Amino acid sequence: MTKTNILVIGGGPAGVIAAVTAKKKNPTKKVILIRENKISVIPCGIPYVFNRLDSVKKDILPDKSLLDNKIGIIIDKALSISTLEKIVILASKKHIQYDRLIIATGSKPIKIPIDGIGKKGVWQVKKDFEYLKKLRRAVVKAKKIVIIGGGYIGVELAEELSNIKSKKITIFEKMDHCLGTTMDREFTEVAEKRLIKKGVDIHTQAEVKEIGGKDKVRYVILKNQKKILADLVIVSVGAKPNIDIIQGTKIKQGQYRGIEVDQYMRTNITDIFAVGDCAETREFFTKKTIPIMLATTACYEARVAGMNIYERNRLIKNHGTLACFSTSINGMAFGAVGLNKKNIHKKIVVGTSQCPSHHPGFLPDTSLITVELIFSKSGGILLGGQIMGPESSGEMLNIIALAIQKQTTIYDMSTLQIASHPLLTPSPTIYPLVTAAQSVLSKVK
Amino acid sequence: MTKTNILVIGGGPAGVIAAVTAKKKNPTKKVILIRENKISVIPCGIPYVFNRLDSVKKDILPDKSLLDNKIGIIIDKALSISTLEKIVILASKKHIQYDRLIIATGSKPIKIPIDGIGKKGVWQVKKDFEYLKKLRRAVVKAKKIVIIGGGYIGVELAEELSNIKSKKITIFEKMDHCLGTTMDREFTEVAEKRLIKKGVDIHTQAEVKEIGGKDKVRYVILKNQKKILADLVIVSVGAKPNIDIIQGTKIKQGQYRGIEVDQYMRTNITDIFAVGDCAETREFFTKKTIPIMLATTACYEARVAGMNIYERNRLIKNHGTLACFSTSINGMAFGAVGLNKKNIHKKIVVGTSQCPSHHPGFLPDTSLITVELIFSKSGGILLGGQIMGPESSGEMLNIIALAIQKQTTIYDMSTLQIASHPLLTPSPTIYPLVTAAQSVLSKVK
Repeated sequence: MTKTNILVIGGGPAGVIAAVTAKKKNPTKKVILIRENKISVIPCGIPYVFNRLDSVKKDILPDKSLLDNKIGIIIDKALSISTLEKIVILASKKHIQYDRLIIATGSKPIKIPIDGIGKKGVWQVKKDFEYLKKLRRAVVKAKKIVIIGGGYIGVELAEELSNIKSKKITIFEKMDHCLGTTMDREFTEVAEKRLIKKGVDIHTQAEVKEIGGKDKVRYVILKNQKKILADLVIVSVGAKPNIDIIQGTKIKQGQYRGIEVDQYMRTNITDIFAVGDCAETREFFTKKTIPIMLATTACYEARVAGMNIYERNRLIKNHGTLACFSTSINGMAFGAVGLNKKNIHKKIVVGTSQCPSHHPGFLPDTSLITVELIFSKSGGILLGGQIMGPESSGEMLNIIALAIQKQTTIYDMSTLQIASHPLLTPSPTIYPLVTAAQSVLSKVK
Repeated sequence: MTKTNILVIGGGPAGVIAAVTAKKKNPTKKVILIRENKISVIPCGIPYVFNRLDSVKKDILPDKSLLDNKIGIIIDKALSISTLEKIVILASKKHIQYDRLIIATGSKPIKIPIDGIGKKGVWQVKKDFEYLKKLRRAVVKAKKIVIIGGGYIGVELAEELSNIKSKKITIFEKMDHCLGTTMDREFTEVAEKRLIKKGVDIHTQAEVKEIGGKDKVRYVILKNQKKILADLVIVSVGAKPNIDIIQGTKIKQGQYRGIEVDQYMRTNITDIFAVGDCAETREFFTKKTIPIMLATTACYEARVAGMNIYERNRLIKNHGTLACFSTSINGMAFGAVGLNKKNIHKKIVVGTSQCPSHHPGFLPDTSLITVELIFSKSGGILLGGQIMGPESSGEMLNIIALAIQKQTTIYDMSTLQIASHPLLTPSPTIYPLVTAAQSVLSKVK
């Protein structure tokens, strides 16, 4: 029987980060990572394997960090855990004894009960190298592609596929707007316009009734009876925790069927941690469980677990996810972090600002950056932010993310010290994070 | 006699920001700004008027924010202040009575005592529209240009001019490396290499002895006797506070001859504030006076002063400048904030990290980002950071800037929550601000 100090189940970003962090924190401990697939893919890169990357091979999550840190890799399926004996049993019948266990088994795509969902030509977005290679081949041949679900993955897929000539791309989104869960209307509308400009046909408030066709998919019918021709359908309506491994154990599940964890990422069973999509996630402000699955949240949780795995005195707290999203649509970055106007239930003030990305604005490659900052009316605590603009807006969003994590106030934001340069950033005189805060300074009590 | 509640002397970024902030905070107060020049230029944009911007006109600091906020503009020279009567006397003999005064008279280029410095063909970098138009015309004609001073302005000028074919550009820098005051060697060397690649001839440890030529400049001789031909010389060796206006008043000067201010930007005379290059600046950590002049620092000070101008109870503190620098050399961003290895006098640990700017790294327009983070050995407080990479590194530097302002520790940085996206940011698994912190986690006590 193989013995290890630390065993990680799962080879996605959460598993890798947990293993590497644990090893770095405890260099003398033996660490093994088990994963099912020979090859792991980079989840966030999946939408881009269809055009920008010319093969799924270019989206492989490299084993370098595992190998560099002398972490053992076992390709096998973990079937069950004996929490009493501290043993994990593999499909190959091998047993691995652990001292500490980190479960990072990720998620599976949600299947929605639509007529015809099982038809040939209907695909999901699976983090599976071999599956994605097949999907890529099918996409290359397809002419009329329908994407069900206008969340981040759906929108990114649509944008990527719209770059390939001769394909007709359609999105069906149940809500009023694509990306509507995380972003306010002022931003989602711009995002949608950019997709439409690329030829994407967007149907919102659109619920699918049936996927039709004889041997394979030929069309999709909405509940409002609209019929759209399709030779390929990608269903991207979210994911659910993959927790098969805890069946038969006393490891507890939470409200959204993920593995329940405390603020140190520990499950209810001593020495077992869970991180990433398979674990329940708490929101930063309310500490309430929310059904969110994000690689960045998974990495954060994995780092917290890795730091805590043998720690007794100085445990690192998971402060809850900020839900940091960013995406790129037709050359424009969009992002959201923290709360938005729709999911806040306290009195807020909302500051906005828009300015050129370079200064003076006549400089080449200058475009507009738009920022929205949300503060509590009482005390002016920063609760959330949204952004759209050029590529650098992705990192500007991360300034907002850090500001929220550090409980920054509207007063701090109004007098933020930043570096600026004509070719890199907006002018210091109208830096949008400062001016958005200043615009509502007088409204805070 | 004109009367105003708030009078601002100076039309550069500090003056404009102080006026606008004061007005926004006190909408019912009358605000007037006096400036000498009909047209103000954007200081940071000056290096770029020679090529990227095709005229000095495209580097004008617009009056929009002043006009939008109903701030009166007077084009005149403020000659003196009667602090007892609260009157400013102008060159036109006009008197303006103020209730609150903000001095934002900026700086003047330093003149160095070199033989031949007064020759025709020797220029300085003045924030003066008419002067810059003349300099631009001279630069267009010149073939062999020598820049004395390899600080940010000198380096940016050299890079900009090297984009124009048929010009030979030479930099003379007194120190061991260009940009050496703010950046460590690992970064300055890369910056220099990029300049050399563009054909710039760099001489470091190079002190100028003489600028020679009969009627106009023909050559420059160094103290080591090296002689370089030149038909135009730009001297860019720093600036000194422009404080002519306080002569004859009891307004105090500080160690570096700028106007002395307290942490609320107040001078020693009641109701008179000073901001920007003309005021003394304190360093963030030590609160000691340092001779630094930066538009971003000036804007920060101006915002603090503007917020405090009529405030009695909730004064905003100037926490001292972080000295946030960024620049762009041959398509690569460089930046530094806070302390660096050369100017820290306590025990530190230095974490470094390098990763691709997109993930997977096969995506188009991917380059490398290099980060250095400096923490105190005791407690792991973030003290400084440096960066080089693509354009978005400019905003990533601002994450470091905020982190320092919010007293972030190595533990916070190791578990930072950020948004990531393949086309916008590095991978969340190897986000360089996180991995640079993690790389030295075990060295902090």
